[in-house]
This record gives sequence, C-alpha cells and structure tokens, in this order.
Amino acid sequence: MQLTEKLNSFLNKPISTPFLVVDLDVLAHQYRRLVTAMPNVVCHYSVKSNSARAVLEKLFALGSCFEAASINEIHACFAAGAKANQIHFGNTIKKISDIETAYQLGVQSYAFDCYEELVKLAQYAPGCRVVCRLKNDGKGAHWGLCHKFGCSLTEAVDFLSRSVLLGLEPYGLSFHVGSQQQSPDAWHRALVDARWVADELVKQDIKIGLINLGGGYPASGYLNDSDNEVDYSMEFFGKCISESLTAIFGSWSGDLKFICEPGRYLLAEAGVVKTTVILACERMLSDQIHRWLYLDVGKFNGLYEASDIKYPVLHHADQRSDKTSTILTGPTCDSSDMLSYKNHLHHLPFTIAVGDPLMFCCAGAYSNSYSCKGFNGFEPLAEYYI
Amino acid sequence: MQLTEKLNSFLNKPISTPFLVVDLDVLAHQYRRLVTAMPNVVCHYSVKSNSARAVLEKLFALGSCFEAASINEIHACFAAGAKANQIHFGNTIKKISDIETAYQLGVQSYAFDCYEELVKLAQYAPGCRVVCRLKNDGKGAHWGLCHKFGCSLTEAVDFLSRSVLLGLEPYGLSFHVGSQQQSPDAWHRALVDARWVADELVKQDIKIGLINLGGGYPASGYLNDSDNEVDYSMEFFGKCISESLTAIFGSWSGDLKFICEPGRYLLAEAGVVKTTVILACERMLSDQIHRWLYLDVGKFNGLYEASDIKYPVLHHADQRSDKTSTILTGPTCDSSDMLSYKNHLHHLPFTIAVGDPLMFCCAGAYSNSYSCKGFNGFEPLAEYYI
Repeated sequence: MQLTEKLNSFLNKPISTPFLVVDLDVLAHQYRRLVTAMPNVVCHYSVKSNSARAVLEKLFALGSCFEAASINEIHACFAAGAKANQIHFGNTIKKISDIETAYQLGVQSYAFDCYEELVKLAQYAPGCRVVCRLKNDGKGAHWGLCHKFGCSLTEAVDFLSRSVLLGLEPYGLSFHVGSQQQSPDAWHRALVDARWVADELVKQDIKIGLINLGGGYPASGYLNDSDNEVDYSMEFFGKCISESLTAIFGSWSGDLKFICEPGRYLLAEAGVVKTTVILACERMLSDQIHRWLYLDVGKFNGLYEASDIKYPVLHHADQRSDKTSTILTGPTCDSSDMLSYKNHLHHLPFTIAVGDPLMFCCAGAYSNSYSCKGFNGFEPLAEYYI
Repeated sequence: MQLTEKLNSFLNKPISTPFLVVDLDVLAHQYRRLVTAMPNVVCHYSVKSNSARAVLEKLFALGSCFEAASINEIHACFAAGAKANQIHFGNTIKKISDIETAYQLGVQSYAFDCYEELVKLAQYAPGCRVVCRLKNDGKGAHWGLCHKFGCSLTEAVDFLSRSVLLGLEPYGLSFHVGSQQQSPDAWHRALVDARWVADELVKQDIKIGLINLGGGYPASGYLNDSDNEVDYSMEFFGKCISESLTAIFGSWSGDLKFICEPGRYLLAEAGVVKTTVILACERMLSDQIHRWLYLDVGKFNGLYEASDIKYPVLHHADQRSDKTSTILTGPTCDSSDMLSYKNHLHHLPFTIAVGDPLMFCCAGAYSNSYSCKGFNGFEPLAEYYI
C-alpha cells in the first residue's frame, strides 16, 4: 500500500491518536476516474459514507451531486453549496417531518419502494419526482442490500403507474447491486430489469426520465490479495457499465438521465486511520497462545467494519523482523471489540511494541460515520481533511 | 410490563422521538435492592452502561462508588461528585496517558490481567493498588466476556507476587461472570477460584485486601417469558452470593473488602426508548410476505443490542385487535439495521400505523452508550432523566 506524500507527512506529525486523515486530492482523483470512466452518468455522492463538510465541499466543487439518507444529510449538502436540484433523497423510508422539510427546501427527487411511502410523498411532497427502487439479489457483492430494500419488477410497474393517480411524477428507477460489488455483470443484469420495467410503463404511456445505478463500485484497496488477477479498477467497471448502458438503453427513444451513487469507492482509499498500540502481550485464545496488540481504536470508535474489511495495516517496525500471527483488539471493555478480518489473524512483526503507531489504510469511508458518540468514554474518531 | 406513573406521564408528552427516558427513582430502587441484598458488598457502578451526569449524580448521592473504563469516564465520575478513592479504573488495558492522568487525579485502584500492563502501571502510577482480573468461562451468561479478559489462576499468583517487586500494592482480585448471568452459582465458582489464588499468595506472605465480584447481575425485565419459573431477582441472587461469600471467605483472617460492578441491572429497567412508526407495510422476506414496521430508532441510534435483547415492546393500539408477526427495522439505509431479537419476529397488532408510538422497555442501559454520533445523519438518541 503506497500512501501519498501528503498523507505520509501528516501521519508523521505528533498528533494524538486515534484519528482519521483524508487526502482530498485522492478523493478528487477517484472522482475524476469515475466521471471519465462513465461519461454519461452523473455522480450523486452517497453522503452516508463520510459526511464531513470538507468532503462535501470538495465534491461540490468538482461538480458532484448528492444522495442523502436523512434530513440532516440534506442540510449538510446545502451547507456545502449544493442546490436543491442536485440532491436526491435516497432513503426509501422517510420520516414525515423530514419529507416536509426537504420539500420546503426544494428537494424534488425522492426514493421509494412501496405504495405506502408513495402515499406519504403524495401528501407531504405533492407533485414530487419519485424514483422506484428495484429489488436486487446482491449476488457478487461483499454485502448485499437485498433484505430491506427494493420491490419486484411488477410492483415497480404498478407503483409508478399509481403514482400518477397520486399526482406524483413517475420519474425513474433505481437499484443497488450491493456494497463492494465484484462483478460489472451485476449492473448489466439490473439494467436489463430496469429496461423491462421502463418498457412496461411505456405501454401505459408513462415515460421515465432517470435510471439510478446506485453504488457498490469497489474500493480496490482492501480486496483480497488472491483477487489480484481480477481487474477491480473503476476504468474497467466504468467501461463495462457504459457498454451495458448502450446495449440495453441505446434503443431508448427520448431523454434518459443516468446517475450513480458512489460512496466507498470515492472515499475509502483517500483515508487512513492512525492508531497507537496501548498493550502488546502474549495470551491465550481458544487454548492457543497468540500475540495480542491492543489499540486505541476499535470497533466502536472508528473501525466498526474491521471484521468485514481487510484493511491493509502499515507500521514502522523493521520489515525484516520476524512476523507472527497477531490478534488486534480495540480499547473498550466490550468482548466483541475485536479487529480481525473474518476472524483471521494479522501477520505483523513481533517487534511492534507499546506506543508504536499502526495505520489502517483505505479507511476513509464509513470509519467516522459508524463511530459511537462515546462508548466506554472513548471519543469518536478525530478527523482531519488535508 | 408495568411502567411507573412518572414514565407514563413523560411518555405521553408530545416530545419528538426517538428518545430515552430514565426514571431515576427506579434506578434508586434498584440500587437499594442491591445493597440490601448484598450488605457486605460495596457497589461500584459500571459507568459504561450509562454515563449520563444525572445517573452518576443520583448514584453518588445514594452512596455508590464507580468503575470507569477510560479517563473520560473518570472525569465524569469526578464531575458527579465522586472522590478519587471511590473510583476504580476497571479497564484491564489502559492508555499510558490515561494512567498518568488518573494517577495525577488521585485514582489509586487499577485493574490488570497481564504482566505487561503491570509494568506500565509501575512506571506511570507508581505504588498504586493493582487488582488482577481472573479469567472466567462466562458459563450461564447471556454474553460471556471470556475471550478478551482475564488471566489464569496461576498467572494471577505470579503477577501479584511480581507486582511487589515492581513497587505496586497487590491489592485484590476481580472477575466478571458475563453479562446477564442467569446462575448465582457462577459467582460461587469464581469465588472458589479467587480463594485459591488468595491462599497461594498468603504462602508468599502477600495478603490481598479486596475481592471484586464484577457485574452480570441480571436485569429481569427482558428475560424470556419461558424463564419465569426461575427467580432472577436481586434478592435471590444477593442471598446466594452472600452465602457464597460466607462459605468461601468466612474463614479468612484479616480485612477483606468486597465490591461489585453492576451496570445493566441498575439502569435497564429504569429506562424506556420511545420511537415512532415511520412506515407500515407488507413486504417479502425470504419468500414470505410479512408485516414490516420501520421505526425512527434502529441499531445505530439507540437499539444496538436489539438483536440480542428481547425488549418488551409497548404500544397504544387496541389490545384486542388481531396480532401479526412483525419485522421491526431501523431508519438507516444499512441492511443490518434490523431490530428483531435473535431473528424472531415480534407479535404486534396489525392496526399499528404510521405515526404511532412504540415503547421499548428495559432500555436504560447501553442504549445511549452504543449510539453512533450520526450514522446516515441520524442523531444519537435524545436523553431525558426524570
């Protein structure tokens, strides 16, 4: 894992740990790769992955639009300079008071995936644009989002045609192929589904204007080493997805806007979480003696996803020193505060000692956002944007 | 589940949800039950279960001492009026800067469970009292705390005798039988272990002065209905534990202080989380159609433990209306934000609709403390102490 000079220089400063540092230039680089690889798709940044003002302002300056999960995220987008027509309220289930406020603020585009939500939208955001989220099996993704979200294709046709009767604008279709999707084919299949729904709606004289390709573009920095022969680059994914758009919607007559909602892809590789070893010892786990490193960051103050994500871990110990399988654990008195990916041990130099720093790379997304407000008295991750 | 008049009256006020309300009289009642049932045991409240100032002040006024997991929790104890000698630094692994600060503030009692931590304590809290945490298998507990904490009995003898050489005071032994321990026998077995270690130390002319019985006393409000024939009352547990203390340490010559570290037992039943239904609909899960209620509280803003705890759920719907198996889910776009206990469905009236309140009872412990600072833009649980 190669860090930028800016990150390395910041990480060398004597700043108390734990903290997250994000290089906004890496974020900008990722953004440019995305819009270059998918020139016909407008980026709506998924604010939930990191809602820091510096991130939103940077993305706004680059031309990005936004996808918000709540009214507070909408306020954050406005604070960063966004206009109402650049914000999509992407949570399929919304509190009535949040719909009212968003509508008053001029937000026009709202996600939904069931009739009951449409009824709420018709009452509290009359005439708004509604975007129906289709169910997706999440196949090929690291985390599917299939249980809680999305409706069937026939339901989508039904809901969007009924939305007209409710005075709403049947604006578009969306899907989410799951987080860290490892196959571009997932988008192809979802687009085939969307085209079927769009065609059915045409038969009812309803012409949608938007397809939302969701998120799920992989952050390649923490994919398995064994996956190295596979191309997880945005260039490859963007090319495949663009080809799918042409193949599936090339024959569509009329205006059709494509948007996407990346989060993790844009932020993950831009950020590093720096932590300090607070204890190094040998102790038992399951009748075997192991090396344990206790860190000042854990599951509840920054690395909630550590059991699911294989963050590359950097250290300053001599690379030639003997390595040993190591259990990493957080600072709280909670026995679930463990940081080993899929219960696998890390392989780290035996010489790492109390006071030494460790750097969790590719941690710019979802590290600060999952932080507890103060579990066990530990503060949420400090954040720096450079 | 019967709520106090004070809670009922507060819950009927038009205060925006979600929020936690804690009846401090229930907390006081639980505290008095504990000190009555275990008259020879000093209560050190486990701050991590709810560190609100009102809670700490109430417990301080009642005569409680405190167990802190971090320097911020120590500061909170001082702010509530506690003196340094009433605070035990109970996290076995501590940051050096936190040890230094606690020591400067006069805290004298520190937990540990490995030699490396003793070395840190000797350097940064010279001469302090050290309390060695023994491993415990957590048998009979809802959550064992066995992986991350505790040393073997022979290690304890070794560490405490070596602590003398480091200039520390080999003050005591501690254990934790696991959260929501359902058998008083767990304390008996742990006390037998502690007595063995204490006797071995006597052979080396080391006489300990403290046994810390830890936490784990059950909050009976959310135990399974099927467990009703079992007595989970503090009166029963206290009687059993007191008998064990007499049986095992009655023959001990010299001063021996007993302390305990309850958290959940004191707070759980004092608190209610009030939430509002933001959507009610039927939708599929695993090829079956279900009733779904989406709430404005979820795993990340107050009910992190909902999949492990069977909170009694109250509502205002007509009790005579037909009930249906219901999936409860939180407001975020995270597919893991589900609130069903052990994946079992709740049985709730079909008439519950958007805007209706639901009350999660026995939620005074760990609801606010696990809250994220703002995941998906949702604020941490608001808190009221009455």
